[in-house]
Amino acid sequence: MLAAVKRPLAVVGGTGPEGIGLALRFAVAGEPIVIGSRVLARALDAAAAVRAAVPGADVHGAENADAVASAGTVVLSVPFSGLAEILAAGRLVLDGKIVIDVVVPVAFRDGFCELLPVPGGGSAGEMIQRALPAARVVSAFKNLPAERLRDLAVPLEGDVVLCGNDAAARAEVAALIARLPRLRAVDAGALANARYLEALTALLLNLNRRHRAKTSIAILF
Amino acid sequence: MLAAVKRPLAVVGGTGPEGIGLALRFAVAGEPIVIGSRVLARALDAAAAVRAAVPGADVHGAENADAVASAGTVVLSVPFSGLAEILAAGRLVLDGKIVIDVVVPVAFRDGFCELLPVPGGGSAGEMIQRALPAARVVSAFKNLPAERLRDLAVPLEGDVVLCGNDAAARAEVAALIARLPRLRAVDAGALANARYLEALTALLLNLNRRHRAKTSIAILF
Repeated sequence: MLAAVKRPLAVVGGTGPEGIGLALRFAVAGEPIVIGSRVLARALDAAAAVRAAVPGADVHGAENADAVASAGTVVLSVPFSGLAEILAAGRLVLDGKIVIDVVVPVAFRDGFCELLPVPGGGSAGEMIQRALPAARVVSAFKNLPAERLRDLAVPLEGDVVLCGNDAAARAEVAALIARLPRLRAVDAGALANARYLEALTALLLNLNRRHRAKTSIAILF
Repeated sequence: MLAAVKRPLAVVGGTGPEGIGLALRFAVAGEPIVIGSRVLARALDAAAAVRAAVPGADVHGAENADAVASAGTVVLSVPFSGLAEILAAGRLVLDGKIVIDVVVPVAFRDGFCELLPVPGGGSAGEMIQRALPAARVVSAFKNLPAERLRDLAVPLEGDVVLCGNDAAARAEVAALIARLPRLRAVDAGALANARYLEALTALLLNLNRRHRAKTSIAILF
């Protein structure tokens, strides 16, 4: 009998700032990674950049659909403006997989970061779950600054509040977060909390702008 | 010329858990307080309770309109369900005064704390500012647990994120917060952030329920 091969973590939209930041941090933690992109060449370039930054990292690039096919867990890290398109029927097959939603539906208008309405209501996380009813969606990482994720010289800090309707999936994501030094997973329960996580991102982005900072949060129990 | 007498801090709706908690904490800090209520007897009882808990405190009770008249700064601490009524034209004269909005438009449904829609849109803070255009509204204290405010044996902790459209008013509220040990004021700028502060309350209340906790937050800069 063959030893089980650990399935990689796929990062769909892994060439954007948040996606590449998560790929870098999970590569440092020793996770095998597949960076997905709509354009294969961009995925390959991003994977090469992560391997250059993290010697010995098991990181590959692939088109999004291929990245997802091999993965056990998929990080969905596309800009909100591209979310509806990537969720279009049949584009990504995610049935039964854990899908970590890190999408933040926000935009700056006149210097103010605003939470945007989501098609169908609620949060980006709920929009993803509606489009992919057989995926195990967990919203997480919405309140960590991408610039800090990408800068491996700076330790991360703060709490990663997560939510989702599948308790076992939340526990698996919490275990994944525990692999990242100094971060603590905080389980908020139902996916309906994703709207509040997304609102918190808007608040933190306004604080960042005002205080020229890269804020994250800690929950004080 | 007479020495300036410090005008009291009025707490409208000061007999509810959050209002009485703030009255207690500010009484400990040596602020003169007037607790307001729709019913004079309840205001007087609450004031007596605060004086009993904080010997030497300068705390009085009054009907809401009278409490407001003598105050320089007014904490508006009514349940969201009673907000429209208290904002009805002419009921409270708050022109030129700093109004600290601590209202959270949330409700529990099937065990889940939900952010409620606000008449006219946006946040409770913006609803107050729309109703009282000449008041200097600052939203604050929305993310501190009332039960902890009321328990003087337990030190407070965390950041009080505040927002409002009048920068001088925000600075005055920040100075007031600085009088409460261990709390830090974090200025988020425009009042439009109030919606995000209120969403954060819903998230914290869901965390409280799930983890049997009384959470507050820290912003990590």
